[in-house]
Amino acid sequence: MERTLEEVRVLIYGIGAIGSQIVRLILKKKGFKIVGAVDISPNIRGKDLGEVIGIDRKLGIIVSGDAEKTLSSVKADIAVHATSSFLKTVYPQITSIVEHGVNVISTCEELTYPYIVDSSLAASLDSLAKKHNVTVLGAGINPGFLMDALPIVLSGACQEIKSIRVERVIDAAKRRLPFQKKIGAGLSLQEFNKRIRDGRITGHVGLEQSVSMIADALKLDLEEVKVEPVRPVIAEKPVESREIKVEEGMVAGLMQTAYGLIDQEPFITLVFKAYIGAEGEYDSITIEGTPRIDQRITPCVQGDLATAAVIVNSIPKVIKAPPGLKTMKDLPIPSAVLSDVRKYL
Amino acid sequence: MERTLEEVRVLIYGIGAIGSQIVRLILKKKGFKIVGAVDISPNIRGKDLGEVIGIDRKLGIIVSGDAEKTLSSVKADIAVHATSSFLKTVYPQITSIVEHGVNVISTCEELTYPYIVDSSLAASLDSLAKKHNVTVLGAGINPGFLMDALPIVLSGACQEIKSIRVERVIDAAKRRLPFQKKIGAGLSLQEFNKRIRDGRITGHVGLEQSVSMIADALKLDLEEVKVEPVRPVIAEKPVESREIKVEEGMVAGLMQTAYGLIDQEPFITLVFKAYIGAEGEYDSITIEGTPRIDQRITPCVQGDLATAAVIVNSIPKVIKAPPGLKTMKDLPIPSAVLSDVRKYL
Repeated sequence: MERTLEEVRVLIYGIGAIGSQIVRLILKKKGFKIVGAVDISPNIRGKDLGEVIGIDRKLGIIVSGDAEKTLSSVKADIAVHATSSFLKTVYPQITSIVEHGVNVISTCEELTYPYIVDSSLAASLDSLAKKHNVTVLGAGINPGFLMDALPIVLSGACQEIKSIRVERVIDAAKRRLPFQKKIGAGLSLQEFNKRIRDGRITGHVGLEQSVSMIADALKLDLEEVKVEPVRPVIAEKPVESREIKVEEGMVAGLMQTAYGLIDQEPFITLVFKAYIGAEGEYDSITIEGTPRIDQRITPCVQGDLATAAVIVNSIPKVIKAPPGLKTMKDLPIPSAVLSDVRKYL
Repeated sequence: MERTLEEVRVLIYGIGAIGSQIVRLILKKKGFKIVGAVDISPNIRGKDLGEVIGIDRKLGIIVSGDAEKTLSSVKADIAVHATSSFLKTVYPQITSIVEHGVNVISTCEELTYPYIVDSSLAASLDSLAKKHNVTVLGAGINPGFLMDALPIVLSGACQEIKSIRVERVIDAAKRRLPFQKKIGAGLSLQEFNKRIRDGRITGHVGLEQSVSMIADALKLDLEEVKVEPVRPVIAEKPVESREIKVEEGMVAGLMQTAYGLIDQEPFITLVFKAYIGAEGEYDSITIEGTPRIDQRITPCVQGDLATAAVIVNSIPKVIKAPPGLKTMKDLPIPSAVLSDVRKYL
């Protein structure tokens, strides 16, 4: 689609912490026009979008609780969707956007590689997107970039590969309080385990997607994608963030590991750790291959900032892509949108 | 193009050191069929390709000195082209391949971003490729990956960017002798400068391409792409490789720097150093931005191995791409071909 004059018309669908960050970033860029905003929360419905995202001015966009009505009344090029981590939850929301002929970029973790969650829902979404001539992409920094797209990119420099190991280690003390709470920092082991059992602590959603995206890009015949249960990281000495003190023996955060197995051996290993007191924060990728590649980003990429970036930077790529359900491995290489977004179309 | 049964038919065009490595790698992969080989060197014309690339068996492919005749008699899907670093030299070779309806992947450094060398030749090549419904790509590890595609990928995680700095530092003692000679290792400063003047030492070709590819992907309005003259790296103490001893005060290798300037300040800085005795080998990318990204690959990616890898791994992407002249920034994210190449089509 050629577009050199008109602004890119964006509908905001879901205005929580990440949705708000994305809106603030869009407002800093030229060439965008926010044409509508939808959120089901009664706390923000009816309010001005500027107020909801915590900036000092009104934007003249009233947050609507009625997605269908908003989709019918505004003519958007793309919906920025940030409501839930789970495919089944977002599926009806995304199909309704698609049926209005609007492209979708979503922060939904499971949508970054939905085929492994529910292949039939993924196939329906792909058909529907093609029928309405729009593109759907799930993206974000993780899943969607650091633990899948980036190792896939680095594999492109290898003749042969024996194994791929990706680690992301986050010092939770440097993150916002809701993140610290989400990983159980400060809880007793008993309370942590209880919250795991009752689903109040789910851990990071996306390792299964990342393993599967890598395997698909490299056409690995995995026997199994194995996701280990979430495990607590116990403080070996007292540690603290501004908001939470963790005594020795209490839970400082959590870790998760996922494998892509071939012949019962891990060809792909992904390790995610987030806890208060992590001494080195990093993202690392080690490819045992020809040549060997040992890559490290220090400190780890700041997740919230980078997720908003990946979403906004992907907008022109989603608009230009052929119709259908896509993943990060299907699009041209990621790149930053630094000036008027219309230059990138 | 759907292809599930037939092998990918490859024509080898140029069988020097890199061309030979690529052939050896292709022979290790399933799903390829080498259907012809062309080289103008009288030393290898008429010989069997297996003998030329230094393996113990015949391949039943006789190296031809007549590209036109070979192109007319074999029906190739793609030509792997590795003859020269310079666009003007490869242009007639590549146009003749394209006119036979064959896709091209080339190691030609200037072809990785040819628009800055000669925009009219680049435009002609693009038109010709579209006319014949084929794709042309210049690729390799550098330029084409480490100092351009990879920083572009990482920029995708950034909201704003103030500057990008990429360094590649190679310990030449770990590389083959022709590489050590190419960078002037062991020469006196006087002899080094003489060889720079008479063109026998050209330095690394491609920094200008890398700066320009980054600038294009990010839509930077550079005032200037500034490539500094090649400079010698003088040994501060005696250093040596297996083949060359470098005394104190002699040339250990070379370094080159290139800039992409905005407001007379370097927005992009690329530093390439290759010398005997480099204490740390690495590839690093530092993006001053939001978030800041500080990435390092240690040791640096082995260039010859990785160039062969990037070329072979790009073959399915070139075959599947829309017709025209492409660069690495236009294609889906790089990825390794680990099993039968037909799975990747």
